[in-house]
Parts: sequence; C-alpha cells; structure tokens
Amino acid sequence: SSNIRLAVIPGDGIGTEVVAEGLKVLNAAGVKSETTEYDLGARRYHASGETLPDEVLDELRGYDAILLGAVGDPSVPPGVLERELLLRLRFELDHYVNLRPVKLFPGVATPLGQVGPEDIDMVVVREGTEGPYAGAGGVMRRGTPHEIATQESLNTAYGVERVVRYAFEKALARPRRKLTLVHKTNVLTYAGDLWARTVDRLSLEFPEVETDYCHVDAASMFFVSQPQRFDVIVTDNLFGDILTDIGAAVAGGIGLAASGNVNPARTAPSMFEPVHGSAPDIAGQGKADPTATILSVAMLLDHLGHAGTAARVEQAVADDLVERQSAWTARSTREIGDDIAARVAG
Amino acid sequence: SSNIRLAVIPGDGIGTEVVAEGLKVLNAAGVKSETTEYDLGARRYHASGETLPDEVLDELRGYDAILLGAVGDPSVPPGVLERELLLRLRFELDHYVNLRPVKLFPGVATPLGQVGPEDIDMVVVREGTEGPYAGAGGVMRRGTPHEIATQESLNTAYGVERVVRYAFEKALARPRRKLTLVHKTNVLTYAGDLWARTVDRLSLEFPEVETDYCHVDAASMFFVSQPQRFDVIVTDNLFGDILTDIGAAVAGGIGLAASGNVNPARTAPSMFEPVHGSAPDIAGQGKADPTATILSVAMLLDHLGHAGTAARVEQAVADDLVERQSAWTARSTREIGDDIAARVAG
Ligand SMILES: CC(C)[C@H](C(=O)O)[C@@H](O)C(=O)O
Ligand SMILES: CC(C)[C@H](C(=O)O)[C@@H](O)C(=O)O
Repeated sequence: SSNIRLAVIPGDGIGTEVVAEGLKVLNAAGVKSETTEYDLGARRYHASGETLPDEVLDELRGYDAILLGAVGDPSVPPGVLERELLLRLRFELDHYVNLRPVKLFPGVATPLGQVGPEDIDMVVVREGTEGPYAGAGGVMRRGTPHEIATQESLNTAYGVERVVRYAFEKALARPRRKLTLVHKTNVLTYAGDLWARTVDRLSLEFPEVETDYCHVDAASMFFVSQPQRFDVIVTDNLFGDILTDIGAAVAGGIGLAASGNVNPARTAPSMFEPVHGSAPDIAGQGKADPTATILSVAMLLDHLGHAGTAARVEQAVADDLVERQSAWTARSTREIGDDIAARVAG
Repeated sequence: SSNIRLAVIPGDGIGTEVVAEGLKVLNAAGVKSETTEYDLGARRYHASGETLPDEVLDELRGYDAILLGAVGDPSVPPGVLERELLLRLRFELDHYVNLRPVKLFPGVATPLGQVGPEDIDMVVVREGTEGPYAGAGGVMRRGTPHEIATQESLNTAYGVERVVRYAFEKALARPRRKLTLVHKTNVLTYAGDLWARTVDRLSLEFPEVETDYCHVDAASMFFVSQPQRFDVIVTDNLFGDILTDIGAAVAGGIGLAASGNVNPARTAPSMFEPVHGSAPDIAGQGKADPTATILSVAMLLDHLGHAGTAARVEQAVADDLVERQSAWTARSTREIGDDIAARVAG
C-alpha cells in the first residue's frame, strides 16, 4: 500500500521529545510514511506572532493524518495557543470525535487500591467541536465592580447526533455493548435535554446496545469508586475533558493516556496526540514518558486502516509496561522509545 | 443561650431517614432547638403540583438555619425538584458559599491505595448562586435536525468577589494557608479571566495566603493522584459540583460527605445538607448512612456559633468511624445515629 503522508506538529516543551519516539516506533512498525514537520507553538508565536496561519491550515488539510506533541508555554498568555492553535485545528478540521481510551494495562500501578486491568477498560467519546468550547460569550464593564462575564455552551442537533451515533457504533463493536451518556441534565436543562433525547432516539436504531445515563458529578465519582460501570461513554467537550483526566489518573497516569481527534467523515485529516500537556518543567531532560504518544500513533495507524500494525504497536507497549514494573532504573524518553521500537520491529 | 429555630426539610427517599438521625444527634448534643418540619419534595409535587410555594419560602426566611435531607425522585421529571426546590432555595436565600470539606477520617477506607488521613484534608468553597447554574439558555427548533440548545454561564464581579474573599478568609484561618483557584481559563476565557483577576486582586489583601491555580481537568486528576496538593479550593458552581463528588469518592464515599449552603452575610438562613441524593433504590430500608447528615449538623452548629458543640459532634463521628472498621456487622441508619448520639451525650 502507499505511503502515509503525515504532518507532524511537535509543538512545545516535551512535545518534541515524545513525538520523536512516536515516529521512531512508526518507522519500526514497517508502515511506509513520509513526514513533514510544522513549526507551530510558542517559538513561532514569539518569533512572528503567528499561531496557525491560514496557509498552514490549508496545507495541513492535504495530509492523511496529523501527529501532535503538545502545545502551551508559560511565556504565552493563557488560552492563546490553546484556542488559536490546538482548538482551532480541532474545530477547522471538524474533529467531532475526541476519542480517549481509558484502559489499565497489566503491570501498571494505579492509585486505586483494589482494581486491576479487568476493572478499567472503557472508551470516552468526547464531543470535539462545540458545547462549552465554542468560544461564545463576552465581558462587560471589565475590571469594574459591575463586570459581568458570560460563557455560552452551544449545542446543535447536528453536532450532538453525529457524535452520539459514532459512540453507538463504537459500543456495538465492543463485547459489552454498553453506552453511558454523561451530562448534567438536572441543571443544564436545555443542553442536557438535547443530549438525552438524541441518545433515546438513536437507541432505537441500536437495540443491541444497552444505554445508561449518569450525571457528571456521579460519573466522576464512579471513575474512582466503580470504574467497572463503564464501557463506552459519550459526553460533551468539557465533561469529556474532565472525565478523561480522571481516567488518566486511575489508569496509571497522564504519561499513558492517548487520544485521537477524529473526523469520522474523513473530510479532513484526523489528529492524534497524547492527552498530556507540554510540561515545561521537565522539558529537554529526557524525563517525559513517550508511551502516550506511541499509543496515539497506534490509534493513528488504526484510523488509517492498518489495524494489524496498530495492534502490534499496542502489544509492544503492553509488553513494555509489564517489564517496567520490575525495572531497576528509570529509562529516559529515548530509551523507552528504543525499547518499544525494538519490540515492534522484532 | 436561646433556642435554635430550625426548619427541617426531610425531602425524598432516604432524606427522611438520615434527617431523623441528624436531629437525634443535635438533641443529644444538648443545644436547645425548636424544629419545624416542611413537607417539600416529590410527595408534595404529586399531591399539589407545588415545589416551593412563595409563602413557604417566606416562612423559611424566618429560621436560624435549615436542615435538608435530599430531594429528587424518578417519578418527577428530571430537573424539576432540583431547579424549583433545591437550587431555588440556594439562590433565593443567597447561599453564595457552598462549603464542602473533603477530609479522610482515620479508619475510613479510601479507594486510593497509598494515602492516609494526613493526605486528604481540604475544603472546597464552591460558588452557589451563579455561573453555569444560572438557568440561562434556551432552545430553538426543538426536536428538529436544526435544533440548537444553549446554556449560559453568568459570572459577576459581585458574585465572584464575595466567594473568593470568603475562601481567602477560610484559607487564612487554616494552618497551611493555601488557596487554589480551579477553573478552565484556557478555554472558558471570559469567565476564567474574571475569576483569575479576582483572585489576583484579593491576594494583595491576603499576603499570608499562598495562591495557586489549577485547570479543572488537572485538578480532577490531582484529587486522585496528589490530594496533598490542596488546602482550600475556590471554584465555580459546576466545577465545585464535580470536584466535591470526586472528593467524596476519595474520602470514603458519599455516605460521609457533608455540606453547608452558607449565606455568610446572614441576610437569610443557611442550609445544611449531605452531598448525597435521595437514593430511591435503598429508601425505607434503614441502609442509608446518616453520617453525612450528622456532619452537616456539626457544620450547622458551627455556623450558629456553637463551635465547641460542633467539634464534639465531629469527634463523636470520628470515634464512631474508627470503631466501624472492626465491626462485625453493618448497622442500620438508626443504629449508627443512636451510637453517635450516645457518644455525643456521654
Ligand atoms: C489544552 C486544552 C485546551 C485541552 C482541552 O481542554 O481540550 C486539553 O486539556 C486536552 O484535554 O486536550
Ligand atoms: C441535585 C443537584 C442539583 C445538586 C447540584 O448539582 O448542586 C447536587 O449534585 C449537589 O451537589 O448538591
């Protein structure tokens, strides 16, 4: 089969380091690829004031997929790179599914005392293009005692239906076939009602899938006390952000959490990235765990039709994680990448 | 000192059962009180369609405090009792501080494997009267493919400043003197900016208090992986709802989580309630843990100036919790209430 044409955005902080290991594993997997690196993030912002020039965005549309490390730096005002680069990519490339597996691999330490890999195996299908992330809102009388600041969640039937449908399909393809909607319908009544009605309506098309509902506060608690409850979760952009960080915490930490910003309609390339941020405090020290990025590469391969290779990468990670527990010394970012690459190649 | 004039709203499900034990302990504590019970909740809604009649609300204003069990029942459309009764009480009585301690008592089992009571001891100061709970928003073209549903978070300088100020005062009175703002400033830029500027400004008035900031997704993760990070947290209504349920999970479960809806200006009575809901599945079986309600009674006593008695009730609970770990059989709701009341009296 033909080359994967891959755009790579290493970004800021540890982004560069972890992406290098992700690409190393991709190469070791034997899938032919052609990568082009894009310099986006804090460095470019400081050099030119640019976050995501329109021409760059247009170019990115031409690739098969994007691999992103992390963006964000304390030297840039909060929200600028997040909104103008990361969220803009997700929105413009219509990544309406933000796919985040929450899975405890054997051998991985979890802060939860009584659970094992059989207890934590879910997929969070987080909406990626609307809701509280729409950027709608405003401020009046800023800096005065009469200031009012608003923030609006925008939810459309179009946007909710397509992500809920994807989640039903995902649930149907898994052994448990269970889909849980997480929202806060008792307080966010307008948005919650749209989400709940959409799940109810689509459930008629998916009679094999058991559906369930959980308020976001209760779901956050259950991630800790009863993670077994969940198989596939569908939720809005903000609740999904929160839940997947709790998920990362219980499944062994942010160093292992992978994600895909997926455009299932394939009208634009999907983008794969670790859930973690740029971690400026440990950048450049070889301390970052590249595992989340390597697992994101596996998701990328799966998305592009290389399911077998994706499974091979995931298995190599799983094997590495089992060995990690009996290791005497911590390995560097590069050493972890080397070891996983060797397993994938061998 | 004079009698406490207390309005009691047992509410639905297990509300009645746990409130009875709360009152039992209040009596045992020897603080004179005069209680009036109000029939509000699902029963009244079905009988008369009423949720919170204006005359009842006016009457409630005349009490020193309110003790609430839980409201909500599957027979009532979602959101009706929550918005028209519970949230209406919080809003109309201007409970702008929703005070939620997250504390692991010695002897209590936590799902976290490696933490003890010294690791989990924080107070969440959750805003109670605005933000995403304002009820603002709407729906257009409902039920059609062109539906749009909005939900608006309303944040005022007035509302944010008063709760942040309360949180600073709370932090100042605790040994660690640390205040963490939790928000999502990189995405919810308008509201987040108001919150962040308010904390920055007030920090000048409280130089002894160390301030910190954490995005809600990271904070949710740290509740599980590093609860030691937190002393006092201040956050908006929705983030506080989520965080305190994670807090309940890590600190031994929802059966122990107490809360106060506090009007610090004392322009109306404050209301104390367990964080848990009405749990219709176990209602009437004597299975509910009344501890959260009893700890809420301790918060009520503290609020009304009976700090010594409040400490005595909390100590009785702490002692009961230590004994609980070596108990052979589970006690009923009433037995737990009896045992704690006996400790308080003795
Ligand atoms: C950096 C931030 C804008 C982003 C988000 O909130 O989506 C991050 O937390 C994530 O989860 O990918
Ligand atoms: C019942 C619901 C409206 C309420 C809330 O969201 O505030 C509850 O979850 C709580 O935390 O007291």
